[in-house]
Amino acid sequence: MNYYIGIDLGGTNVRVAKVDEEGRILKDVIAPSHGKEGPEKIEANILELLKGFDLSDVKSIGLAIPGPVDGEKNVITMATNIPGCEGYPFADNIQKAVDVPVFLDNDANAAGLAEAILGAGRGYNEVYFLTHSTGIGGALVIDGHVVSGHKGYCGEVANVIVDPEAKLYPIYSHLNKGGVETVASGTAIGLIGEEVIGPEAASSRKVFSMAKDGDERAIAILDRMSLNLARCLSAISAICAPDCFVIGGGCSHSSEMYFDKVREYFKTMAHEGMREVPILKAALAEPGVLGAAMIGKSRLG
Amino acid sequence: MNYYIGIDLGGTNVRVAKVDEEGRILKDVIAPSHGKEGPEKIEANILELLKGFDLSDVKSIGLAIPGPVDGEKNVITMATNIPGCEGYPFADNIQKAVDVPVFLDNDANAAGLAEAILGAGRGYNEVYFLTHSTGIGGALVIDGHVVSGHKGYCGEVANVIVDPEAKLYPIYSHLNKGGVETVASGTAIGLIGEEVIGPEAASSRKVFSMAKDGDERAIAILDRMSLNLARCLSAISAICAPDCFVIGGGCSHSSEMYFDKVREYFKTMAHEGMREVPILKAALAEPGVLGAAMIGKSRLG
Repeated sequence: MNYYIGIDLGGTNVRVAKVDEEGRILKDVIAPSHGKEGPEKIEANILELLKGFDLSDVKSIGLAIPGPVDGEKNVITMATNIPGCEGYPFADNIQKAVDVPVFLDNDANAAGLAEAILGAGRGYNEVYFLTHSTGIGGALVIDGHVVSGHKGYCGEVANVIVDPEAKLYPIYSHLNKGGVETVASGTAIGLIGEEVIGPEAASSRKVFSMAKDGDERAIAILDRMSLNLARCLSAISAICAPDCFVIGGGCSHSSEMYFDKVREYFKTMAHEGMREVPILKAALAEPGVLGAAMIGKSRLG
Repeated sequence: MNYYIGIDLGGTNVRVAKVDEEGRILKDVIAPSHGKEGPEKIEANILELLKGFDLSDVKSIGLAIPGPVDGEKNVITMATNIPGCEGYPFADNIQKAVDVPVFLDNDANAAGLAEAILGAGRGYNEVYFLTHSTGIGGALVIDGHVVSGHKGYCGEVANVIVDPEAKLYPIYSHLNKGGVETVASGTAIGLIGEEVIGPEAASSRKVFSMAKDGDERAIAILDRMSLNLARCLSAISAICAPDCFVIGGGCSHSSEMYFDKVREYFKTMAHEGMREVPILKAALAEPGVLGAAMIGKSRLG
C-alpha cells in the first residue's frame, strides 16, 4: 500500500491528512492557516503541522491552493485568499525541509482529481468536474491526470458566456456579461433572489428553501439557473467531450432541486452522441484534502 | 529516422503518403476513394494503393476518416461522406493484410495533430485547432496526443452556442440556434451574405472579396463572424485553457480579412491570464495526410 500526504490550504484553515492509495484517511489535522500573514508564516505553520506525521513511508506531498497554479513551474499564479503567495517556492522549500517530493495544484483541480479517481467519476476516462458553490470553478481530468492548461487556467469556467442578455451585477464587473458564474453561482442566485423576490431570498440557500416550499418565483430562478448551467455543460461537451460530468460544491447539496432540470436542458443542447453522458453529483465528503493527496499520486504514480 | 504511412480518406478521394518523423513526404499517391461504394470496396482500394509503397521500414499506418472515431475501439462512430462504414474494422483488416499497426482518427483530429506536432502549434504543450471551412470542427492536442473524448467527439465545436439571437437557417436544424457553425462557418457566411446583400454575396468567397473591395455590408458580416468566432475561442479558453489556438481550413486562407478582429474581440472576453494566448494561422500545406501519418506516431511513438 502506498501513502500520500494531502494539504488543503485555504484562506482561513489548513488541513493536513495522511491518505492511502484507496483514499482512506489515516490521520488528519485541521488548524488556522494564517492565510493573510504572508507565505513565510503559512509555510512555517505547515512544516510545524507536518512534524505530527510519520513521513517515512510517504511517497509524495500534494498541496492544494485556492487559485490557479503554474504546473510546470510548480508555483502559484494568482491567490486571492492567501495574498502575497504568487510565485513563492512552497513546493521547493517544503521538499527541502522534509525530503519528500511536493506538488502544487489548484483546489478545484484537486477536488476534481479526487472525484475522478476515487469518487463519482471513478471508471470514466475523461471527467469534467464543476464546483457549484459561491463561485463556479472546475477541472478537467483525463486518464487520472489533471489537465493544467495555460498557466493553470484549465477549468476556470466562470467566464463562459451562457446568458448574454442577463444583468451583470457590479461585483462581477471583472467577468463577462452573461458569464456562468455571474448568473448561476450561489452568490448570483442570492443576488437575483434579492432583486426579484426581496431580502427573504438574498442567498442561494434561501432561494432553494423557498423553491422547496413551492414559491413560483424561486422555482423560476432555479429553472433559469439550471438552463444556464446546462448551457455551460453543453459548451464543455462540444469543446472537450468528457465521458461524465461531476458537480460538487455547496449548491450541489441541494441537487434534488435542480440536477434533473440541468439534465433535461442538457439533452436539448448536446450533440446526439453526447446526450447520454451522465451528470453526476460529487460523491466524496472530503474532496479537498483527498484531492491534495492524489496530486502527488497522479504525478509520480 | 522513423517512417509512417498516412492515409487521408475522403468521400471523393483518398491520399496515401509515406512520411518521415519530421513531416517530409517521401512518396504520395492520390486516387478516387470509392467512398459511396461501401467499406469493402474502400478497403480493397486502399490495400491496392498500399502495394505501391515499401512498408518494410514503416512503423505504423494512420487512417484519417471524415467523421468521429471511437479511439478505444479503433472504429468509425459516424461517417456522413463514406456511408455504411460505421463500426467497420478497417484498422484490424488492414493491419492483418500488411502486418503493420493501423490507427484510426477523425480528419480534423489528424489535421490538428499535424499542426500541433509539425505546424503552427509546434512547441506549445496544449493546442486547440479549429478548421474554419464549410463547417467548423476542431481538435484538442495535449503533449503531442489527440484528446479523443467521449466516442471521439472532442473538438466537435459546431454546436457551441455563441449568438443565441441569430437566425437558424433550415440547413442547420440539427444544430443549436446560435451554434458557431450556424453563424460563422463558410456556408453560414454565404447564407447571410445572400440574405443581407443578395445573390452576388452567396458564398463566403464572394463576401470576403466584397469586403476587400470596401463593401460596408460585407465588412459588417465579417465583423459579426469574427465576434462569434472569438466567443467560441473564449469559451474554449475558459474550459480548457490551451497554450495556443491554430485556425486552418478554407476560410483561413483569407486570414488577413478577419484574424486581427478575432484577436481583438478575444482579448475583451478571455480571462486576464489567457489574453496573451496566440491565435495562429495553420502553417501546413498538407495537414490531412501528414496528420494521418502522425496518428500512428502519437500512439506508438
